[in-house]
Amino acid sequence: MFFKKLLRTSEAWRIIKNVLEKIELPIEEVEVDSALGRYLAEDVKSNVDIPPYDKSAVDGFAVKSMDLTGASLYNPALLKYIGEVAIGSSPRYVIREGEAVKVDTGAPIPGGADAVVELESCNILGEYVEVTKRVAPFANVIRKGEDVEKGEIVAERGYRIKPWDIALIKGVGVEKIKVYKPPKVVLISTGSELSPSWENGKIVDTNKPNLKNLLKLLSIDALDMGIVGDMREEVKKALETACENADIIITTGGVSVGERDYTIKILEEIGEIYLHGVAVRPGMPFAFAKIGDTLVFALPGNPVAAYVDYKLFVETSILHLYSAKPPDIPIMAKLKYKIPSSLGFKEFVRVKLENTGKEVYAIPVRRRGSSILSSIVRSDGVVVIPEDSEGLPEGTTTRVYLHTQPWKGILEDGNS
Amino acid sequence: MFFKKLLRTSEAWRIIKNVLEKIELPIEEVEVDSALGRYLAEDVKSNVDIPPYDKSAVDGFAVKSMDLTGASLYNPALLKYIGEVAIGSSPRYVIREGEAVKVDTGAPIPGGADAVVELESCNILGEYVEVTKRVAPFANVIRKGEDVEKGEIVAERGYRIKPWDIALIKGVGVEKIKVYKPPKVVLISTGSELSPSWENGKIVDTNKPNLKNLLKLLSIDALDMGIVGDMREEVKKALETACENADIIITTGGVSVGERDYTIKILEEIGEIYLHGVAVRPGMPFAFAKIGDTLVFALPGNPVAAYVDYKLFVETSILHLYSAKPPDIPIMAKLKYKIPSSLGFKEFVRVKLENTGKEVYAIPVRRRGSSILSSIVRSDGVVVIPEDSEGLPEGTTTRVYLHTQPWKGILEDGNS
Repeated sequence: MFFKKLLRTSEAWRIIKNVLEKIELPIEEVEVDSALGRYLAEDVKSNVDIPPYDKSAVDGFAVKSMDLTGASLYNPALLKYIGEVAIGSSPRYVIREGEAVKVDTGAPIPGGADAVVELESCNILGEYVEVTKRVAPFANVIRKGEDVEKGEIVAERGYRIKPWDIALIKGVGVEKIKVYKPPKVVLISTGSELSPSWENGKIVDTNKPNLKNLLKLLSIDALDMGIVGDMREEVKKALETACENADIIITTGGVSVGERDYTIKILEEIGEIYLHGVAVRPGMPFAFAKIGDTLVFALPGNPVAAYVDYKLFVETSILHLYSAKPPDIPIMAKLKYKIPSSLGFKEFVRVKLENTGKEVYAIPVRRRGSSILSSIVRSDGVVVIPEDSEGLPEGTTTRVYLHTQPWKGILEDGNS
Repeated sequence: MFFKKLLRTSEAWRIIKNVLEKIELPIEEVEVDSALGRYLAEDVKSNVDIPPYDKSAVDGFAVKSMDLTGASLYNPALLKYIGEVAIGSSPRYVIREGEAVKVDTGAPIPGGADAVVELESCNILGEYVEVTKRVAPFANVIRKGEDVEKGEIVAERGYRIKPWDIALIKGVGVEKIKVYKPPKVVLISTGSELSPSWENGKIVDTNKPNLKNLLKLLSIDALDMGIVGDMREEVKKALETACENADIIITTGGVSVGERDYTIKILEEIGEIYLHGVAVRPGMPFAFAKIGDTLVFALPGNPVAAYVDYKLFVETSILHLYSAKPPDIPIMAKLKYKIPSSLGFKEFVRVKLENTGKEVYAIPVRRRGSSILSSIVRSDGVVVIPEDSEGLPEGTTTRVYLHTQPWKGILEDGNS
């Protein structure tokens, strides 16, 4: 009836990571235009200098700064106005001593010029221009390659493509990039009591839509293999069929140590179980296994437990396969109420954030049961109570891990 | 050559919001399964109680708690074992005084029972069961409607649908929901120097892919009307054509006060300009106008300026049309270096976050120009220096607005 040994999350992660190290996701080349949300499988390097030439930061006159050494409001320098350069055009001029060329903001600086005087300090007098100030070399000049140098890395392997990355990557002359192909994921729910939608006497399988859409956020379109009853042969057949099509199988239910927990029994029979039972609450009856080359994440049936194990182990694993390094964006908040916790378990308490403008509070949601799906909906994230703590007193400033972000670093010891 | 008057962001937002109040987005009904990322146009209420009946939180025996008043390890109560109820089945039993029924975790509590004793405190003796402890009424019972009551709101109008919402909404028996139809958005870039991809002597139009993908994050598939040269008639024709198809036009470029800034001139001619010029840096040459019923957000051509104005005004406006109330998730960080700023301008300084574990630092990116697109890519968000500040000293703890989240509340006065 009981688990032999519950692993700490750090131990569980070490075991899983060890299996993941041997896996390499295939890579595909895609148009950067359609790569939003994908994970880079290579460093993207700039093909060009940005800007590609020295250009003007203002509307003004391109000059040799040497020519203005003595210039001031009362002693303006007189330069010969030899032409204009508009933005987007190539300069046809090379400036010699005592000459100036009018330039637009963004226009390339003509040869020989090394600075730009803004229009406000210039008076145009027919073929001449009077300049009323000195300028330092490269004043108002944006240097070639100042934004991005040719060959510079503009996005690293494992980086998730965001709108501004697409813009920059196109801007540096790159149109195709290599990204990881999402792994093929199959979802199986087990439980004779489940129904895909509401039906009297049945329980709606809420895990399936939750997992399916959580995976969408990782660019994965998972295959739904439906609901399987608590019958040994049905569960076995489902797992065997899933294996043929999947890199990863995610199951819910049947993973505790009861008589009818067939998922875990079948995994023992046809696969290899790497771990079963983790010291987390909710989410204790979690198993990680392999059937052939297919990874199996066997989550508990309770919705919150399944969610916590998904965020902790499945999402982290998939991000690991993507070589992802999500940014570490810490949200700190003050606990509005004390949180009790059990020694020996890493506890995940759903909290709502409240920003008063002066202080940010984390308010634990009232209903904490592992079947209480609404506790996720009604919260912004979780506070983590480590294994060696009996809880946190009211007023503790603690970290909040958002539902909408990867739970980075949470699996390691000492993190909370 | 200069703007007559620069509006504070709060004034600009008041003007824009006033126009938005008169607009109502159309509503459509969709399957909740395919509603990820959509914005709710109605409150979603539960059709059922969750759980639909009192159910057991543990594997154990359902009892009348009164029967165990005197029970203890040394003086166990003896109850008659009259049957079992499995999860997903309906109870066929009604318990009378002195009786007990075995129940699985999640199984409905039989009539007459008001508590469950966990298996560990029960010894089965043939037709009888010995119970070694007292229990309070409703111990180990999850009450009908404890998670969600019938008629209770499970997701509010304006709420953005996340994976766990889809799960909960299906769980409460709702399969179709009303969401806002995304507005029809048309994108026009202006600038003779621009090219859609890298080409010698031209500048890549990076605003288009940035805006197009930023809008995707708001469930909007914008129509790309390409690049229009700096020619009066071309710009006019593009705006007139766009109007026919769009609720919202977003332009970039041609919005300053120079000779060739045709966007603003045409808007003056064929539309109504509500504001032109905002006291922000970057992003000052921003205009908001209407042509007929179509809203026009005219952004500057410089990539960072266009981005800042998009986040400030366009995104906020679209979220307003969706009735969205994004959560206020504040990120606080300590400035690693001082930031100078100009009085009278709200400045947006791109910063990278660094979490040392003890302290979170905001590190201003070195290259700050408004044409420096890489400054967005190399940062996590912005720090805002209000209009009446000349800057922030090193070590100031300040708020960071992430690129990946709505910049909530930033437009109002006094916020930074």
